[in-house]
Parts: sequence; structure tokens; C-alpha cells
Amino acid sequence: MLVMNIARIFGYECAGPAWLRTEGADFAAMGPMSACPAAFADEEVVDAQGGMALPSFCDSHTHIVFAGSRHGEFRDKIDGLSYEEIAARGGGILNSADLLHGTSEDELFAQSMARADEVMRKGTGSIEIKSGYGLTLPDELKMLRVIARIAEASPMTVRTTFLGAHAVGRAFAGRQDDYVTHIVDDMLPAVAAEGLADFVDVFCDRGFFTPDQTARILDAAARYGMRPKIHADELAASGGTAVGVSHNAVSVDHLEQAGEAELDLLAHSQTIATMLPGASFFLGMPYAPARRALAAGCRVALASDYNPGSSPSGDMRFVWALGCIKMKLTPEQALTCCTATGAAAMDLGATRGRIAPGYRADFILTRPLPDLSVIPYQYTTPYIHRLYLSAHPLP
Amino acid sequence: MLVMNIARIFGYECAGPAWLRTEGADFAAMGPMSACPAAFADEEVVDAQGGMALPSFCDSHTHIVFAGSRHGEFRDKIDGLSYEEIAARGGGILNSADLLHGTSEDELFAQSMARADEVMRKGTGSIEIKSGYGLTLPDELKMLRVIARIAEASPMTVRTTFLGAHAVGRAFAGRQDDYVTHIVDDMLPAVAAEGLADFVDVFCDRGFFTPDQTARILDAAARYGMRPKIHADELAASGGTAVGVSHNAVSVDHLEQAGEAELDLLAHSQTIATMLPGASFFLGMPYAPARRALAAGCRVALASDYNPGSSPSGDMRFVWALGCIKMKLTPEQALTCCTATGAAAMDLGATRGRIAPGYRADFILTRPLPDLSVIPYQYTTPYIHRLYLSAHPLP
Repeated sequence: MLVMNIARIFGYECAGPAWLRTEGADFAAMGPMSACPAAFADEEVVDAQGGMALPSFCDSHTHIVFAGSRHGEFRDKIDGLSYEEIAARGGGILNSADLLHGTSEDELFAQSMARADEVMRKGTGSIEIKSGYGLTLPDELKMLRVIARIAEASPMTVRTTFLGAHAVGRAFAGRQDDYVTHIVDDMLPAVAAEGLADFVDVFCDRGFFTPDQTARILDAAARYGMRPKIHADELAASGGTAVGVSHNAVSVDHLEQAGEAELDLLAHSQTIATMLPGASFFLGMPYAPARRALAAGCRVALASDYNPGSSPSGDMRFVWALGCIKMKLTPEQALTCCTATGAAAMDLGATRGRIAPGYRADFILTRPLPDLSVIPYQYTTPYIHRLYLSAHPLP
Repeated sequence: MLVMNIARIFGYECAGPAWLRTEGADFAAMGPMSACPAAFADEEVVDAQGGMALPSFCDSHTHIVFAGSRHGEFRDKIDGLSYEEIAARGGGILNSADLLHGTSEDELFAQSMARADEVMRKGTGSIEIKSGYGLTLPDELKMLRVIARIAEASPMTVRTTFLGAHAVGRAFAGRQDDYVTHIVDDMLPAVAAEGLADFVDVFCDRGFFTPDQTARILDAAARYGMRPKIHADELAASGGTAVGVSHNAVSVDHLEQAGEAELDLLAHSQTIATMLPGASFFLGMPYAPARRALAAGCRVALASDYNPGSSPSGDMRFVWALGCIKMKLTPEQALTCCTATGAAAMDLGATRGRIAPGYRADFILTRPLPDLSVIPYQYTTPYIHRLYLSAHPLP
């Protein structure tokens, strides 16, 4: 495919408009329109008509496999109910687990695949999906198999994370260490035996799992080749970043409470700082310190955290806008966080998230616009015009 | 038109699904599907397939007529420039006025009509549009004529507000009282002579127009039958609400800084409290006290404030979501604020903003959904399915 008359290819600098060529599923070449090659025989030619070409979004932190809806909890929060009251009425992670337990794998797949389609149509090309609403071995495996089916059925690139340590399953109430042992001794071997997870995650935070418990799980996962992507420092700066970095985590995620010590650790590591502004927006929490992290030398990814409790949106264009409006990143910085660095936070940095030869041809063509910044600035104006995954247009 | 199998008609209570009939451009009747009438000969029949019917949004405060884009200012704000630096580089109301001055009426119409179409496709059926980027008599008239052309060309219902007192025009720099005299002696008579405005607005706030200056303008406008809709208490509780209420304003708008005294005044008046959560979202200002206002007995409208400086979105579905997520209104309260009370804030309360016999048949059909609350809760999921204005589907 030859795409002509592109006003700007994000990440490729040239004076004036540009062309772009794909071969098979990948980008092959690009250059200025002033030296546009002739189309090959039978090559499809697309006229971008002065729109821009952007990499598809790479959403490196989601929980889109869940059962049912938690809109009742949304009403309860507005009505001012406490966390305990909401849990008693069916909110929270444990109740999501109960709901998922009673949902068949096929039904869970149908509900979750609809969400995958929805975010794809908003511009996401690569996505990480976590388990963690199972909290028993059979239900965690059910979730991971559903993620595998989504990976099979969707044109998106899907990466899978085992998050057995999202909360303590009901059968282990009051026995958190025993649940960690169950994860280490039973869940991880079973998940690894079926090859169902690329990464391992732990909710390492105040009131959830401790750094020591987290280390036990990460050590065990390392034996199966699963690198960590962990939840850290959302509720308190509580040691999650340190345990992640010391275990060579691909990313530590959330970081709303991260201070200089955490940013300094990350800046001197290979671990990416993944921030989730949609959760801050929805919960009214502080936004993670994205500008300070970049200034400290960290690599920063932005992701949606799409989940039914704290971030019920997987719209990465809105995440991009929050990166600018709330975190005060430049439009270019925030888009890089939503694409190339997001891809790196899924260990896909060599093949996804950039428009460059050899990368997968997942991209967005925009309507003509005066400047890249109008997409996050006029954050609800429909600037995204066409979506391509593996060089195929979405129907 | 007969619409069948509607899961819920907002504002019409019945057990089970409902039907809805229009005659000409208006709603004619509704009732439960258990007693659905037969279609008339040649009557169009629509199957809502279990979706809900909601009134179209009534956006009672916008500035969608402006020239060009202020995305450069968006970048400057991210870069931390001060208000003065931004103004020096082309930001702010006065620079919008300069840009509008150099834009032909036809070009201004083309740019603004595109915005009107955009918000209509997001579900708005009635809209108020203000002047106020002219700040000279010829340019204010140019804006008002453009609004009249939008009213002519758009299927939406358009109401027009003269906002000459948005800022002091450059020719009157340092002579604010003289500018007020110019508005009173020259602008208002000319606007009235051409019948170009339904309402009058003044930016009555700290650093803008004083309550005394506001009163002069409102007194003069009253002689031409223009009721006030004024900007008040955004930057400080500075007397705007009182002068609005004492002049029988249709609405006082913004109110981020309104306290108990202002809410008490409003609760004992016919004046609607219009709040603009999109500006709070974009600027990081406090949200206006919507819950306290409702509890105090005020009538509360929510509007988009769509403008290039402080609220670059006219998406009323997002305003609805902000009403719930940020202002903690229930989904039903916030939708009423975005529809029936918004219509009342344009003096259209008898014919717009409700699904009821005799009201204009402007409505939204949703996709099937488990509860009304999912629309503001899953705030980016595409639940809006079809839009009808005057009983005609949008193509």
C-alpha cells in the first residue's frame, strides 16, 4: 500500500507532506512527497488528503475481561456510600470475581470481545489485558483463556498478564500469605504450563500485597520467564517501585503517590513508569507526576487502566488529552507515551508503536488539521478518520 | 412516526417498554407497549429494539462562533507561560477578536457551521450561541448575522445572545465606562433594530465588568426586550448573581465561586443557575456547587461553554458525565440539567428538552443498555445510536 499526501508522519521529520509504503503487514519506507515513488502494479494507493499519520495507540495496562457492569456502584458512589457499604452491595474486586465465577467462558468472551472491538475502533492497535477477577485457579485460567481467544479473534496485538494477586480470593480471607503460597505453588505453574501469560502482575500497595509477598511471586514467576508489570504506589509510596525495579520489571504502573525516590530509582533502571490518568480523572485522585518523571529521565507510558471500578473507559485518545490537559505533557510527549513507550511497556518496543520501516503497519489517518495539538486540545472533536491494523483498513 | 419497543422514555414512567408517536415536528403521544396502537397508514415505524429514548441535549451556553483555532495557546499553557505572555503571543479574548475582525462573514459562517454540525451529531438539539469576539459594532453584528445564518441552516433550534460586554474592545482600552456607554448607546440599539438577539450577556466578574456597569447594560437591554443571561461568579463571588437576579435574568452562568448567599438568592428567584463543568475540567478550576444548588432549591442547568479558550468541547454527553463524575449529580439529575433545565435557560422550557406531547420531537435513541447510568459511567462507550430532530433522523 502506498499512502500519499500525508501532512505529517508522527516521528518522521521531513519538510512538507510525505508518503508512506507498507509491505505485507509492516511499514516498508517513507519519504517526502517531493520525491514520491510511483505505485507498483496492483499496489493499493491511499490519498491521505492532508491528514496526519499517527501510530495506533499501544495501551499497556487494561482489565477489559470482566463480567457484567458495575454501574450500580457508580450510583452508590454518587450517593456517597462508603467503600464498605459499596462492597456490601456488590461493588469492588471481590464482587467482580463472584460475577465472573458465575459467567461462562463463552459469555465472558462475548462481553470482553465487544470491549476489545470498542477500543480498537477508538484507535488502539496493541493492548495488554490482565487477569485478576478470578482469584481462584479455575477462574484465573478462564480469564486467561478468554484473553487468548481475544488475541486470536482481534486484529489487535494482545499481550497477557497474570494478575492472580489483584486481591485475596474469598477462600483465603484473612490468610494473605497462604494465598500468596497458592499463587506461587499452584497458579503460576498451571498458567505457565498452558503458556497463557506473558507477564506477571501484583497489586503491591498499602492494604493489598506487601513488597515481601510481591517479591515471592515475582521470584517464582521469573522461573517461568514471566517478567513483572506491577501495580505500585497508587495509594501510598509503599515499596512497590523498588521491588519492581529490583526484579527487572518491564513496568511499574499507577505511581500517583510516587516521590523523588521512586522516580530516581526508575530513571536509573530499564523499568518503564506507566501512568493511568483515566483512573485519576474518574476517582478524583491526584495525577501521577508525568512531567517530573520525564524530567528525571524516566521512560513514561500512559495507559487506560480500562476496568469497571476505577477507569471505565479505554479511549486512548482521551488518555492522550488527559496527558496534556492534566499532566501538562506536550502533545508530542503524551502521544509518544501512548504509542512507542506504551509498546515498550508490553515488551513490543521493537515492532509496535512507531511508524518506521520494519514496524507493524498499525496506524491512524486523521482528518486534515492545523496542528497535532488540536487532537488533545479539542478533545471531543472527531479528528480520527481511518484506522489501519497490519496495513488493513478497519471496515 | 411510531417508535416501538423503547426500554425507557426519559421523563415518562411506565412499567415495561413503551411506544412513542410524533405528529409533524412534535411529540404527540406515548404509552406502554402492552397497549401499543396500530400504525396509521403510511406512518413510518421505527423499532428502538430495546434502546432508551432521551431528549436531545439543550446546550444553553456556548461561544461556537469564532475564527481560527487557539491551539497555540494550548501549547503555551502546557509550557507554563503566564496569561500576559500568552496574550502577547496571540491568546485570549482580544486576540480572538483580532482574528475574527480579519475573517470574512462567509468564512466565519463556514467555520462555525462545522462546529454546529459537530455538536448536533453528538446529540444537541437546541443551542444558545453568544457574540462577544467582535467587541466593535460591525464585528458584533457580523457575529450575530452568522448566528442567524446558523439558525437558518441548522436543524437545531438556535437562540442568540448579544455579549458585547465580553471584554473591553481595544479601541476603548483603559476606558471601560466609555465602552459600556458605547454598548448602551450604539450597540444595543443597532442589534435590536435588526432583531438579532434574544438575550443579553455581560461578563460580570472580578477584573471584567462591575455590577454597576452590568446593571447599566441590563437596564438598557430591557428596553429592547432582551432578558439577561450573564457570566457571574467564575473568578470571584463579585455581585454578578445579585445583579442578574435583580434584573430577572433567565440564567446566571458559571458560579464556580458561588457561596450560600448566591445560591439562596437564586433559590428564591426565577433565575436558573447554569454551570459549566467542561471549563472546570479544562482549566483545572473548582466545579460549581451543583449538588448544593439543587439542595438549596435552585434550578440547575449544565452547559458546554464551548469556546476556544477555556472549554474547547461542545460534547454534552461528556458534560452529563462530568455532572455525575465530578459534581456528584445522579444520572437522572444531570440529564435533566442537560435537557429540560437547559431548555428553560434558553426560555424554551415549554417546547424543548422533554419527551412529552406538544414538545418538539428532538430525541436520542440509545443502543440497548442495562441502565441509564451506563452512559455517564462508561463515558466514552458509544451508546448513542440514532438522533432525531423535529422527528427527522439525522442522516
